[in-house]
Amino acid sequence: MNISHIEHIGIAVKSIADCLPYYENVLGLKCYNIEEVTDQKVKTAFFKAGQTKIELLEPASEDSTIAKFIEKKGEGIHHIAFAVPDVAAALAEAESKGVQLIDKAPRGGAEGLNIAFLHPKSTCSVLTELCQNN
Amino acid sequence: MNISHIEHIGIAVKSIADCLPYYENVLGLKCYNIEEVTDQKVKTAFFKAGQTKIELLEPASEDSTIAKFIEKKGEGIHHIAFAVPDVAAALAEAESKGVQLIDKAPRGGAEGLNIAFLHPKSTCSVLTELCQNN
Repeated sequence: MNISHIEHIGIAVKSIADCLPYYENVLGLKCYNIEEVTDQKVKTAFFKAGQTKIELLEPASEDSTIAKFIEKKGEGIHHIAFAVPDVAAALAEAESKGVQLIDKAPRGGAEGLNIAFLHPKSTCSVLTELCQNN
Repeated sequence: MNISHIEHIGIAVKSIADCLPYYENVLGLKCYNIEEVTDQKVKTAFFKAGQTKIELLEPASEDSTIAKFIEKKGEGIHHIAFAVPDVAAALAEAESKGVQLIDKAPRGGAEGLNIAFLHPKSTCSVLTELCQNN
């Protein structure tokens, strides 16, 4: 599916404010954007490490999928997102190869990107996102 | 600590052989190296996505840390590794800022890199590796 790079790594945290000092002062990565994605009920904070962003995901409500993830598995790495030139084409290719899709069609994600998720059942247990590489 | 990019993402799997078709045929990433790291009791398989490698980690014995991880949390993303110019200097900086270290000094990792791990207690629950950027 012509993956060019890892667009971002999503990390579930209870509190972005509590994690900022580690990312900024220890790792030396600068938070360049904090954004709420209302339909996902998450607050996000972005850092850049080379080609790849780190996206901290804080639950904005108790019924968000991130809150449920933290409750079940604890804080930690939540998903990996690959950059592809055409999310719709990549989804169609994945489906034709037997991959179970979470999103049947691309939708809008953080930072205005077209995104879609593949189901961990088909991806060796890694929640996998495809992002349009604009 | 002058992170240049994400060197790799480590993913714990029960079987590299079972996951190769997904990585190669669906994602279209080519496995360019399979290597056993005997002191870690793991078999590793490497793929490249832009600047960042994906490292599949299969337990080579039941008492490996990867086997214990899978038993406790299931298969999935295990750690994130940042490329830094000098692992020893980055470790010293992290320790001076109160980060708990797993490795007090750099040691040899897969692909002959100098590496060291930071403890998830100090890294917002993400097992974090530093890799010398050669």
